[in-house]
Amino acid sequence: MLDKIFNPKSIAVIGASSTEGKVGHAIMKNLMAFGKNPTNKIYPINPKYDEILGIKCYKSVLEVPDNIDLAVITIPAKLIPNTLEECGKKGIKGAVIISAGFSEVGNYELEEKVKTIAKKYNIRIIGPNCLGIINMHNRLNASFSKEYFKEGNITFISQSGAILTAILDIAPLLNLGFSKIISLGNKIDIQESDLMEYLIHDDTTEVVVFYIEGLKDKKFIESAKRLAKVKPIIALKSGKTEAGAKAASSHTGSLAGDAQIYNAAFKKGKVLTVETFEELVNLMHVFSTQPLMKGDKIGIITNAGGFGVIAADSCKKYGLTIGEFEESTREELKKYLPPTSSISNPLDLIGDADTNRYKNALNIVKNDKNIDGMLVILTPQEMTKPLEVADVIVETKNKMKNEGISKPIVASFVGGVSIKGAKSYLRKNGVPAYISPESGIEALSSSYKYNTMKIKEDSCEYLNSIKDELLKIKEKYKDIVKNLLNNPNEYNSKEFLKIHGMKVPKRYLAKTPEEAENYASNLDDVVMKISSPDILHKSDAGCVIVKPKDIKEAFNTIMENGKIYLEKNGIEGVIDGVLIEEYIEGIEIIVGGKRDAVFGPVIMVGLGGVFVEVLKDVSFGIHPITRDYALDKLKELKSYKVLEGIRGRPKRDIDFIIDIMVRLGTIMEIYPEIKEIDINPLFVKEDGKGGCVGDALIIVENNEN
Amino acid sequence: MLDKIFNPKSIAVIGASSTEGKVGHAIMKNLMAFGKNPTNKIYPINPKYDEILGIKCYKSVLEVPDNIDLAVITIPAKLIPNTLEECGKKGIKGAVIISAGFSEVGNYELEEKVKTIAKKYNIRIIGPNCLGIINMHNRLNASFSKEYFKEGNITFISQSGAILTAILDIAPLLNLGFSKIISLGNKIDIQESDLMEYLIHDDTTEVVVFYIEGLKDKKFIESAKRLAKVKPIIALKSGKTEAGAKAASSHTGSLAGDAQIYNAAFKKGKVLTVETFEELVNLMHVFSTQPLMKGDKIGIITNAGGFGVIAADSCKKYGLTIGEFEESTREELKKYLPPTSSISNPLDLIGDADTNRYKNALNIVKNDKNIDGMLVILTPQEMTKPLEVADVIVETKNKMKNEGISKPIVASFVGGVSIKGAKSYLRKNGVPAYISPESGIEALSSSYKYNTMKIKEDSCEYLNSIKDELLKIKEKYKDIVKNLLNNPNEYNSKEFLKIHGMKVPKRYLAKTPEEAENYASNLDDVVMKISSPDILHKSDAGCVIVKPKDIKEAFNTIMENGKIYLEKNGIEGVIDGVLIEEYIEGIEIIVGGKRDAVFGPVIMVGLGGVFVEVLKDVSFGIHPITRDYALDKLKELKSYKVLEGIRGRPKRDIDFIIDIMVRLGTIMEIYPEIKEIDINPLFVKEDGKGGCVGDALIIVENNEN
Repeated sequence: MLDKIFNPKSIAVIGASSTEGKVGHAIMKNLMAFGKNPTNKIYPINPKYDEILGIKCYKSVLEVPDNIDLAVITIPAKLIPNTLEECGKKGIKGAVIISAGFSEVGNYELEEKVKTIAKKYNIRIIGPNCLGIINMHNRLNASFSKEYFKEGNITFISQSGAILTAILDIAPLLNLGFSKIISLGNKIDIQESDLMEYLIHDDTTEVVVFYIEGLKDKKFIESAKRLAKVKPIIALKSGKTEAGAKAASSHTGSLAGDAQIYNAAFKKGKVLTVETFEELVNLMHVFSTQPLMKGDKIGIITNAGGFGVIAADSCKKYGLTIGEFEESTREELKKYLPPTSSISNPLDLIGDADTNRYKNALNIVKNDKNIDGMLVILTPQEMTKPLEVADVIVETKNKMKNEGISKPIVASFVGGVSIKGAKSYLRKNGVPAYISPESGIEALSSSYKYNTMKIKEDSCEYLNSIKDELLKIKEKYKDIVKNLLNNPNEYNSKEFLKIHGMKVPKRYLAKTPEEAENYASNLDDVVMKISSPDILHKSDAGCVIVKPKDIKEAFNTIMENGKIYLEKNGIEGVIDGVLIEEYIEGIEIIVGGKRDAVFGPVIMVGLGGVFVEVLKDVSFGIHPITRDYALDKLKELKSYKVLEGIRGRPKRDIDFIIDIMVRLGTIMEIYPEIKEIDINPLFVKEDGKGGCVGDALIIVENNEN
Repeated sequence: MLDKIFNPKSIAVIGASSTEGKVGHAIMKNLMAFGKNPTNKIYPINPKYDEILGIKCYKSVLEVPDNIDLAVITIPAKLIPNTLEECGKKGIKGAVIISAGFSEVGNYELEEKVKTIAKKYNIRIIGPNCLGIINMHNRLNASFSKEYFKEGNITFISQSGAILTAILDIAPLLNLGFSKIISLGNKIDIQESDLMEYLIHDDTTEVVVFYIEGLKDKKFIESAKRLAKVKPIIALKSGKTEAGAKAASSHTGSLAGDAQIYNAAFKKGKVLTVETFEELVNLMHVFSTQPLMKGDKIGIITNAGGFGVIAADSCKKYGLTIGEFEESTREELKKYLPPTSSISNPLDLIGDADTNRYKNALNIVKNDKNIDGMLVILTPQEMTKPLEVADVIVETKNKMKNEGISKPIVASFVGGVSIKGAKSYLRKNGVPAYISPESGIEALSSSYKYNTMKIKEDSCEYLNSIKDELLKIKEKYKDIVKNLLNNPNEYNSKEFLKIHGMKVPKRYLAKTPEEAENYASNLDDVVMKISSPDILHKSDAGCVIVKPKDIKEAFNTIMENGKIYLEKNGIEGVIDGVLIEEYIEGIEIIVGGKRDAVFGPVIMVGLGGVFVEVLKDVSFGIHPITRDYALDKLKELKSYKVLEGIRGRPKRDIDFIIDIMVRLGTIMEIYPEIKEIDINPLFVKEDGKGGCVGDALIIVENNEN
């Protein structure tokens, strides 16, 4: 279906205009100037004109004698519903709505109206409030952006028109070539996932780049995963911080989301995320021109020792390794380098390096099996001829291609006036030339990272077996969620988790001091806690006593403190009694689940105590939570080593935590009415010995949605 | 003295040459081409020639009839000692040794020889193995670097010639102007501190920039602090990571130091450190052209909402705040902005912003008292005239200067071909133009950071009183360090610390099980530990028992485990007995001291347990450790909040930790024979209740140096 939009055989420009300066004029001109068949398949639509720029103009699409694949719409927002009806009647299946004036200025109703009509007629829509689209390879420019047209392999998809414009303005300097340029605007219909599914099979696209302010695309992760298997996806997401989010919401109608969840989503979708606009451009450069870096070992060749050191520093930061040259490489290099040169990596060709020294070094290092990619550094020195060295690098790149050596090569020529020409020569010939060695290392590290990511595939076996198990339980205990809704206290929450295969401590609800004493006599050590849906932070309210000496006294204290708490906070609350619970020793973990409006169930995990309270050391995962994925999430924790056992302390039962995480994700999936689950603490014993839920709370929403 | 080097009245070029391509020729040409009085005060020295480039040549400096201020030396290394003797005899007080062939290729002996001669005659030396020096304002080019000469306020000091060359090559593009360019080379005499002291009073220098691979300058911090009070210092230090350090040591003769200690040293010296070469250049740009940012509140003006969001994201990262516009600003802005514009910061002028809208916005925002600095973002749009907007920015900058508004203004024009001219116009007119909004925010944040840093001054009162106290103790207990040297066990270490004012638990050394039981009866709970200088990790050896039930049995176990440990490890060691120690409850801190070859006593502090073991959450401070400084170091810890008390847990006695840190630094200072002190754990009780040393070890070096 999207093919009608990107490869239309006939185009209607609704709102076409003869007046210079109007968007409808710019679109006409762009379509005509760039189009393969500039006149015979463009139909300007405007009741005011008989012809525009020499082409016959129609009053309505309904008057056009031909079929129309794509409508590009630039008329005022309020006129669009009517026009879209006509498009529907005409059988048009694709539209790009350039016009603004919808949700971004609060006009939600109008946007809904357009959506409904589109649905009725099965019209796929890009926009509204966008710059349009360009398909370089088909010479389609259905946009009002400035002209830059170099065919290439990058598809750039942007939520902001200005950022698109900036990219197109930078592109000629870096010699970046594009397949498609897509301005998304308000995204009332076509979402990122639609485009990604389309791009999987789009032969001219080899790299997909996003600028995102906020997603509302529930299928984003799944589509990204599919696309990332075959093509790298790079994304810059803005509006990450609070201050940033504020700016984003006043800028477009989109709701900027929570940074940690977005990061988890991108990671799950195997999307490479960048932190800055500069990094975005740098990565586009390396991915569009170089083969992937298959291993982490880099070779650095430089005529300035200092920059060699700086590049080596960066390697550690970005997770690359300085490869150890093979013996044969060292022997070969010795023949061509001055005797004072220490033949090691970074390879310092020394300040008086001429073109030949670069040439020989590159020719030798490119064959080294311990080197997966190369960074060539040059600073302007007396003996250095930047343009010649640039040529040597381009030659090396071409040689590698011919010889079937699949390694990326990037350059960093550091300087200004003396190296300008060489840099532009490199870029023209498909070698990224970065302004500093750090950027070169960063770019190569991303190439390596993507290569690692795309190969990885989680097994779903365990997850599926858990899902089967829990679905049967759901079937069996039909009213269990209603119980929680009616009385969402700790007791019921734990009961729910217990039924769903999580171990909980032995526990009894005591209504009197005597009952309490009676129950406690069956257990070793106990913890006593109030049971009340209205007291959330039980410890703070003085309603938890660990290993009490006198059970009856403890019962009374807890009940009293509970009443005082309710009174103080003016809550008309219920106290069910006091829970008498088996005291469990083990490391404390917190595991939680919440529901994200875009991505669905999100699981959080972290070590309890100071780790979560002081260091906020938690990690987020998005369902489906497979075993492998759960382990990845645990490994993301700075405190993960604690679980593995440090300084002679025992390893903890990591499999047990993983099982809990998989169950939690699945529970969130199969019970859409559950809004939030908090297990805090989850006690985890030594490896192989499991653990149990210390405390839990499940929040159920009244309205099933 | 350094004035003879930077402002010489007469110069001898030893090794001057007529042969093109030789360094001695390049230097002559550079001196003559650039010099104020190109011929009459330059004395080429070379026994092979009668004249060089039309100037009379002498066989030796001794033959020159005039006084000579500066000798620039380019002859082979092995000839230098002899020549330097002659320079000394001639009364020359300054020399720049360009020649290589010293410690950087292992020729330490020759380097020492040169040093000795220089000392004998009081000759101050820059180099050897350097590019030379340039003093732009005096038109002195005693270097063989390429020509770029724009007078300005930056003094650039580099340990690497290549990085200097790169900077000089970039400079014309950014319109950077320099006061002095100094290539340091092997630094056998003149160090960074000498230059910093000189630059304090150098009127033409307003910003000092360093590229450092390794320091051997013991006075670095003190001089930096003095200089930073009046001029910002920016430093890029390479060789920070292990891989980097390896490259550095094979590159120059310098020993690259430990990253954490360097960071502590720079911070103490109020030096702004940058992580990348690009950042270095960006900071040079803002500091050399803009007034300092006096507060943290930034105003962002943009014609692209997306980049406004990106800039706002960066603010959080770099510690700036988005200023809230004053009511009057908002009122004024309303007059000039379209009604759809939401008047807030970042101020989105919207895609169709023309030059006037920028002009009005800048004119209004510059006067806002809630705004301390401005970032102006532009992307190429239909209505945008980049060059005109650039002119408006330059105008605003000049207006602010005339009106006494001291706020920095920087630009980020994001794009390529359309904005090239405007960027270069901005730079020519003293406005930094960054390639991305993030760089602009980063640069302004450094300006703010420096302004905050330079004002801060620690009080030394407490430190001085501690020093007086400890010096008296040192006087009184003359043999105390010798005791430690002879028997550096825990008992003696703690005894030492106790005498120096640190509380230690009550403890007794028991030689028999009976003694142990007897001692323990005087205390509540006890810890029992082996006392032996040969068993370092006592817990791991099974030689620590906390709160034993049977004292005699514990004694025997510990002794036995100690013997097994020694046997297993093949150590012929001594066991003194078992320490019976009062059991102390409190939060565990580790505090340590070591001696850095360059910076002297270094103190380390961190929270014990997982914080240090898993998270490596420690901070380093360099003596003198004042109270304020010690507190800063504690606050650098991620776990600092634990000390302040979290979730209802009590605040800890932070003053007590500070006192220990001050004492530790002072002990390291007044006992130079102490190599290392480790206090682990230091128990810290609740606020006001102090704490005590749980375990300690002091290592004393045999040779006092």
